[in-house]
Amino acid sequence: MKKFNTQPPSGTRDFLPADVKDREWVFGVIKKVFESFGFLPMDTPALERIETLMGKYGEEAQKLIFKILKRGDQAASGEADLALRYDLTVPLARFFAQYQNQLPRPFRRYQISPVWRADRPGKGRFREFYQCDVDVIGSSSLLADAEVILAITRSLSCLNLSGYVVRLNSRKVLAGLLEIYGIPSELRQATLTAFDKLDKIGVEGVIRELKSFKLPETIIDEVSTDLSKKGTELKSRISASLSGSEGLKEIDELVSLVSPLLSKGEIEFSPFLARGLDYYTGPIFEIYLKGATGAIASGGRYDNLIEMFTGKRIPACGGSLGVDRLLSEIKQIGNRMRENPIAPQVFLAVWDFASRIETLRIASELRNEGISTEVSLIEGKIGDQVRYASKRGVRYCLFYGPDEQMRKEVTIKNLSTGEQKNVKREQISQTLKSFIQGR
Amino acid sequence: MKKFNTQPPSGTRDFLPADVKDREWVFGVIKKVFESFGFLPMDTPALERIETLMGKYGEEAQKLIFKILKRGDQAASGEADLALRYDLTVPLARFFAQYQNQLPRPFRRYQISPVWRADRPGKGRFREFYQCDVDVIGSSSLLADAEVILAITRSLSCLNLSGYVVRLNSRKVLAGLLEIYGIPSELRQATLTAFDKLDKIGVEGVIRELKSFKLPETIIDEVSTDLSKKGTELKSRISASLSGSEGLKEIDELVSLVSPLLSKGEIEFSPFLARGLDYYTGPIFEIYLKGATGAIASGGRYDNLIEMFTGKRIPACGGSLGVDRLLSEIKQIGNRMRENPIAPQVFLAVWDFASRIETLRIASELRNEGISTEVSLIEGKIGDQVRYASKRGVRYCLFYGPDEQMRKEVTIKNLSTGEQKNVKREQISQTLKSFIQGR
Repeated sequence: MKKFNTQPPSGTRDFLPADVKDREWVFGVIKKVFESFGFLPMDTPALERIETLMGKYGEEAQKLIFKILKRGDQAASGEADLALRYDLTVPLARFFAQYQNQLPRPFRRYQISPVWRADRPGKGRFREFYQCDVDVIGSSSLLADAEVILAITRSLSCLNLSGYVVRLNSRKVLAGLLEIYGIPSELRQATLTAFDKLDKIGVEGVIRELKSFKLPETIIDEVSTDLSKKGTELKSRISASLSGSEGLKEIDELVSLVSPLLSKGEIEFSPFLARGLDYYTGPIFEIYLKGATGAIASGGRYDNLIEMFTGKRIPACGGSLGVDRLLSEIKQIGNRMRENPIAPQVFLAVWDFASRIETLRIASELRNEGISTEVSLIEGKIGDQVRYASKRGVRYCLFYGPDEQMRKEVTIKNLSTGEQKNVKREQISQTLKSFIQGR
Repeated sequence: MKKFNTQPPSGTRDFLPADVKDREWVFGVIKKVFESFGFLPMDTPALERIETLMGKYGEEAQKLIFKILKRGDQAASGEADLALRYDLTVPLARFFAQYQNQLPRPFRRYQISPVWRADRPGKGRFREFYQCDVDVIGSSSLLADAEVILAITRSLSCLNLSGYVVRLNSRKVLAGLLEIYGIPSELRQATLTAFDKLDKIGVEGVIRELKSFKLPETIIDEVSTDLSKKGTELKSRISASLSGSEGLKEIDELVSLVSPLLSKGEIEFSPFLARGLDYYTGPIFEIYLKGATGAIASGGRYDNLIEMFTGKRIPACGGSLGVDRLLSEIKQIGNRMRENPIAPQVFLAVWDFASRIETLRIASELRNEGISTEVSLIEGKIGDQVRYASKRGVRYCLFYGPDEQMRKEVTIKNLSTGEQKNVKREQISQTLKSFIQGR
């Protein structure tokens, strides 16, 4: 017999029962926060037409899109017509264009769904992962940007993660910097990409990349000095450019709106923060948990993306929470809210063949009363059945043997204490409820 | 500007906010029922290696698998190495093989996840759709088959869908029938496929297919007579074969376990029910809602599938609920449990630029108290803001204008009745709570 590789494909994961429960807890907290802000849920398919995704993310990102072969007679062509969604933002733009007349405007939405990227799988990097996105479409007010950041930081607080830093910039500040430095237009995108790596490769790394573009020494010296400075120290310099000063105005206003409400975190101006994706146009942000590497959330304003689908300019902004990083943080601080959440409350032993029908009936009655109940599927010795129940973490084991059947009773055994009690057939669920509540 | 097609790809769907809410309600009910039976949640990636899926479903089904192109330098080859999961059963077999030592045995699991099939999209047929599966791995007891059917029918009852029929058969009964008719072994699979279409194409249609196989007239006459008979009428005939009589024993036992607990439905023996997929070995079933065409749930025993991944024979059975059919049924009978579930409770108008910071603070306080609150993102006239709130279905609108600011108050307006009330700044959430609860 051929032996299959039973691991999930590279960069993807299986989720054991306790993993699913952890993830659901996180999703539940986030949903509740997002809905408390008036964000509405929506969903799109995992598949999009290839042309919907192409040309929206930039060249580097585009290479990471998973493409799907044509079917049937066309499969042999080796061509692809569909692709797995790369993020939740471009599909949102398509969605909004399609249903705009049925949606409130501004439209506040949230979505918690998986996305796929053919990234090199590494520590903490996955090819299939969930994003939790909030977006506002149809408002150019900075209140919208503020609400997006507040919804995300509030989610962090509600997950008991405190001590975060919101790093804020604006694409307009970056445009101003490029102008002030005098970077030639053909090198602007590459320079931004280099800036964006500051955290990963440090000042020296960025300078090394800039040198490889053959920029004049004077420019490189200037950038090098600025890269080590704090955002606030660069403000007067940035305001020398029109675009830069517009960006600073956005930043100051956004900080004044958001910072009074960040009880458990800080916000700071990061003039070299660039964000990889092409579609951003205004304020952009990244949120870091203290002590953790890599951003846990990010986002920004993208006022031109919706236009690619509607033909009309419609302002928009949004942000995305990376739930995988969240989950590993929550595990590390042992933040779990549940105690053996995956065991049922009751285990029903099956005494013999003849008692099976009545045993199923008892199970049905308990389930009707909201008591989760497993019926033994192990044929044979009662001892084996009880050992399974114990291992499974069940507290109450029920027996319905010949004696019990004669007396119209069941025996309830507490598997933690060993205590036993005989209970009349019609009082089982009532008794179990008092046991469970009295815990 | 190039105009994009903004519809979702053929056979896939977008979900508007109310659609997501409906779906979540259905998933919530089903999850609660499955967990009350002790089924544990688990999850696998959407992507599997191609070789994991191939050779498990049968030739026809295999053609419907969506394949994913290799990436990077290998993309040009036109070859695929990954595929989207076609169902939740084969990935479960891989999952169980990988983690069997960490899982309870028998392992009861449930999974609610999308699957993808490159079917011809038609009415009610989708290429991306959710399945809600329950399975038991590691038990050969018919109690396991019974619990699977009971968990599914109980879900239907809890969704207020009554009047269902469970149609039951066994692959052993089918083997018996093929033996009794004397169908040559090379035509057995094709004959089963023809039987399986009985509902869709009727007795005549099945006979037409059998004739196309050039089966002898005598066999075709025999089958033709039997196809019109009730299951119970065929029992003595079926028991003439060893395999058939084993199958009947399974069926009788399963009916005796399940039927006393089907308060809102029936169970019947359907000897020509075949189920398309290759991997079934024992009892198989389909569940129909009265008056609806097409099965709403189906499943069966597949004792050999896990072996393909573990190398050891491990018995298993399970079933799958089709949530799309469920949703359309629930919509038809107007079974919704919610009244405008997607509007926030409170809308906060934004009076002017200066009051924005304090308005965000009020919103934050209300959200802290569990009151869902939208802050206006419409810059400009208060009238426009209120019109938006009204259209959005919000009941309570809050104003924090210059008068209110001076008196440290807000005005609460009930948008349904037009009533207004001035409330002290520190009593807002308390007052709103009493309004909301008093509804």
